[in-house]
Amino acid sequence: MKITVVCEHNPGMESEKGRRAYPEGLGNCLCDLLRETGAEVTLVRADETGVALTDEVLGGTDVLFWWGHWYHKQVDDALVEKVAARVHGGMGMVFLHSAHDSKPFKRLLGTPCSLRWREDGERERLWCVSPGHPIARGLGEFIDIPQEEMYGEYFDIPTPDELVYVGWFEGGEVFRGGCVFRRGRGKLFYFNPGHETYPTYRLPAVRTLLRQAAAYVAPAEGVGETPACRHCEQFSVPSAR
Amino acid sequence: MKITVVCEHNPGMESEKGRRAYPEGLGNCLCDLLRETGAEVTLVRADETGVALTDEVLGGTDVLFWWGHWYHKQVDDALVEKVAARVHGGMGMVFLHSAHDSKPFKRLLGTPCSLRWREDGERERLWCVSPGHPIARGLGEFIDIPQEEMYGEYFDIPTPDELVYVGWFEGGEVFRGGCVFRRGRGKLFYFNPGHETYPTYRLPAVRTLLRQAAAYVAPAEGVGETPACRHCEQFSVPSAR
Amino acid sequence: MKITVVCEHNPGMESEKGRRAYPEGLGNCLCDLLRETGAEVTLVRADETGVALTDEVLGGTDVLFWWGHWYHKQVDDALVEKVAARVHGGMGMVFLHSAHDSKPFKRLLGTPCSLRWREDGERERLWCVSPGHPIARGLGEFIDIPQEEMYGEYFDIPTPDELVYVGWFEGGEVFRGGCVFRRGRGKLFYFNPGHETYPTYRLPAVRTLLRQAAAYVAPAEGVGETPACRHCEQFSVPSAR
Amino acid sequence: MKITVVCEHNPGMESEKGRRAYPEGLGNCLCDLLRETGAEVTLVRADETGVALTDEVLGGTDVLFWWGHWYHKQVDDALVEKVAARVHGGMGMVFLHSAHDSKPFKRLLGTPCSLRWREDGERERLWCVSPGHPIARGLGEFIDIPQEEMYGEYFDIPTPDELVYVGWFEGGEVFRGGCVFRRGRGKLFYFNPGHETYPTYRLPAVRTLLRQAAAYVAPAEGVGETPACRHCEQFSVPSAR
Repeated sequence: MKITVVCEHNPGMESEKGRRAYPEGLGNCLCDLLRETGAEVTLVRADETGVALTDEVLGGTDVLFWWGHWYHKQVDDALVEKVAARVHGGMGMVFLHSAHDSKPFKRLLGTPCSLRWREDGERERLWCVSPGHPIARGLGEFIDIPQEEMYGEYFDIPTPDELVYVGWFEGGEVFRGGCVFRRGRGKLFYFNPGHETYPTYRLPAVRTLLRQAAAYVAPAEGVGETPACRHCEQFSVPSAR
Repeated sequence: MKITVVCEHNPGMESEKGRRAYPEGLGNCLCDLLRETGAEVTLVRADETGVALTDEVLGGTDVLFWWGHWYHKQVDDALVEKVAARVHGGMGMVFLHSAHDSKPFKRLLGTPCSLRWREDGERERLWCVSPGHPIARGLGEFIDIPQEEMYGEYFDIPTPDELVYVGWFEGGEVFRGGCVFRRGRGKLFYFNPGHETYPTYRLPAVRTLLRQAAAYVAPAEGVGETPACRHCEQFSVPSAR
Repeated sequence: MKITVVCEHNPGMESEKGRRAYPEGLGNCLCDLLRETGAEVTLVRADETGVALTDEVLGGTDVLFWWGHWYHKQVDDALVEKVAARVHGGMGMVFLHSAHDSKPFKRLLGTPCSLRWREDGERERLWCVSPGHPIARGLGEFIDIPQEEMYGEYFDIPTPDELVYVGWFEGGEVFRGGCVFRRGRGKLFYFNPGHETYPTYRLPAVRTLLRQAAAYVAPAEGVGETPACRHCEQFSVPSAR
Repeated sequence: MKITVVCEHNPGMESEKGRRAYPEGLGNCLCDLLRETGAEVTLVRADETGVALTDEVLGGTDVLFWWGHWYHKQVDDALVEKVAARVHGGMGMVFLHSAHDSKPFKRLLGTPCSLRWREDGERERLWCVSPGHPIARGLGEFIDIPQEEMYGEYFDIPTPDELVYVGWFEGGEVFRGGCVFRRGRGKLFYFNPGHETYPTYRLPAVRTLLRQAAAYVAPAEGVGETPACRHCEQFSVPSAR
């Protein structure tokens, strides 16, 4: 399996808190944990100049992770269409944290994907509402994130095909924070934790969850072309009578 | 529209807190608020001797409310089957609070409907996750319940057909507290608030919500027979060629 | 209620078959049947120059019908965004027949919405798979369309929030031909029958269905702004302990 | 993995057509194809005396197949409860053909599960409506069954959690014939083909599909106890402020 991680580099990561949380860089932290699955993992940088994702790398990707926050608008619209087409053909995607506001996420879901937020380092407890789900295997009734950016409802997404986690925040909010969507032959997973100044991706439960998410959204049958409308001239079933 | 309210009378209601919350009785409080819709409303008592719901009353009911807590096991299995059959034929139902553990609810959903609970009078905030929904009309982003029994996930129900509210509890839990299920021609709504010792059904937002829920689950086309398997001898469409 | 009907005028409508099916024009036929609801109905022409839908008309629309086939690509992208934003704010939409390939439909669903097709005037039988649904009220177990363009699976849409009709075609195909989707505060209904050379919109059952669809997708609470992400500085619930 | 196959022995199987279709017995045919997965497979007979499924065999089962037709009523209610409890704890089930009318299916779904039927040996074409689904892997756009008993809509089931196949029948009907339901920690798959007098389970595509279904519904994490309501005395998250 080939996993590609698109990860933004932004000034928040250069802050003292950011460097303390991820001295090796948040993108490298994600790649390292995903390599433990045995997958071939490639890091692609996003920044104020856009996303350095080539057709060749995208064309070989089975599962694409996307972490972005400051530079959503810098992502090229043509690239967004290529990513969406590959999802329709079967590629899996995992959208992390502020990627709720990324162009590919909104393109694939069709809604504003807006939410309430507050950056106050408060505790999040993610309750599993689908205990038999492969993404939640072995992770117990809930996952605690000691400090996280609050993301709250109303989260303006279509009804998820599978709702796996609902987050509780100290300050009074709830959030559908672990959601699977199917689009064409592809599957998407959205997971809210992962602000760049909190070391959330170091938590063992979160690392296991992300590896299980990669396996879950991986294409069952490879990635094909985006299907177009097809004309079929003949009756597909000849009348037997 | 004819609404029937099955409401248990139990010792909790006779406690000082219970009498202070509902001096007229919780069942009468429900009936009064539902009468404001213009519906004809009938109260049916449930207690340690079972539920006094006659075939005649059930047979004329468009929407059945169910509030029960102490005496679920005393409900007659034959009555449960009659209620389920009428739902399959189109009757709407609203299950309140501990009715999650009632026989008709479990019969219609097919799962244990178990949950976590704690009676500690803590605040619940119900967030609307479906803001265009008729049940939530005019009620804003959230509904606050000053004191309620905590009901928390994992709530062992099938995935709701429509998830309308998710509750946040002070003590750290979340709960899918406002859920619509379709079963046969009938619709069900489950709503978690309403412990017998807190005056939750006096809150204006809750009263509006319950009236809107009654309207939403009311049958679109009357209540018919439970459909049975039907043999059809002929090809339903004659071959044109 | 204000209904706006965007309807393409194309050369197929000028053919002998087209003029025989709808001497008054397909768009006028749709408007006439919708006026029987008591709604104020406005017809907006689409053709090779695009869609003549002004901000003023769109801004007053509760439910927007969309019929297009030949000139999807001529629809202005900025208009598509305005339509999508109004749906997110609560406007209902009904997409008819080839509007499965229209820009607003694909924008709101996020998938290619491709399908198989054959224009051979064969019979379609639409089976109701949600008999208590308000859109299907009074219409029986199935609706017969004597001659229609075949649209077959795989129809590349997200899982509908409510599947109401599944079509059977003489030639061997099935099609999820009556589907409700919720997007933001708005509801969409897609209905496959209605090729411009068959008088499908004259069938009493189809006319009733379209009126019921308009009522079903109409906004419960008016149309508001598209919600954006909102920052909330304070804990929404002050800690009680 | 341990698979148990409950398969009825009925007089239809002793008919000339029945013996020609499955000389080794339909139950043995199912067991043989499932053994190709490497699983340990046990056949359990059902007949007019009931189902010979012991607690020991059930208690060791990961995936339970159920084929029944004539003797649904002879199945012991206490066994039905045990089967349901094990599904809630994580066991997978595959219900075949007339098992739509079996007690465990109706117990787990909560609806009558009634349908239209006609035994006329007509062709069924099952169209895949979820092409990325693991159960459909490698099986193409449709599966043809040369002769099958017709099962048609309205099929009185809850909305499936995942709709994988929709059947087309020569005589004019459609049927949601390949459906996944999640109940508690367990997954169910229903598949309509398999009347006892047609050799459907010899078709390579059907055999592959059934093996993939077994893998799909297999528990991700073993089978546990049916969860009961749990009291939790303390706030689960201690207030930080």
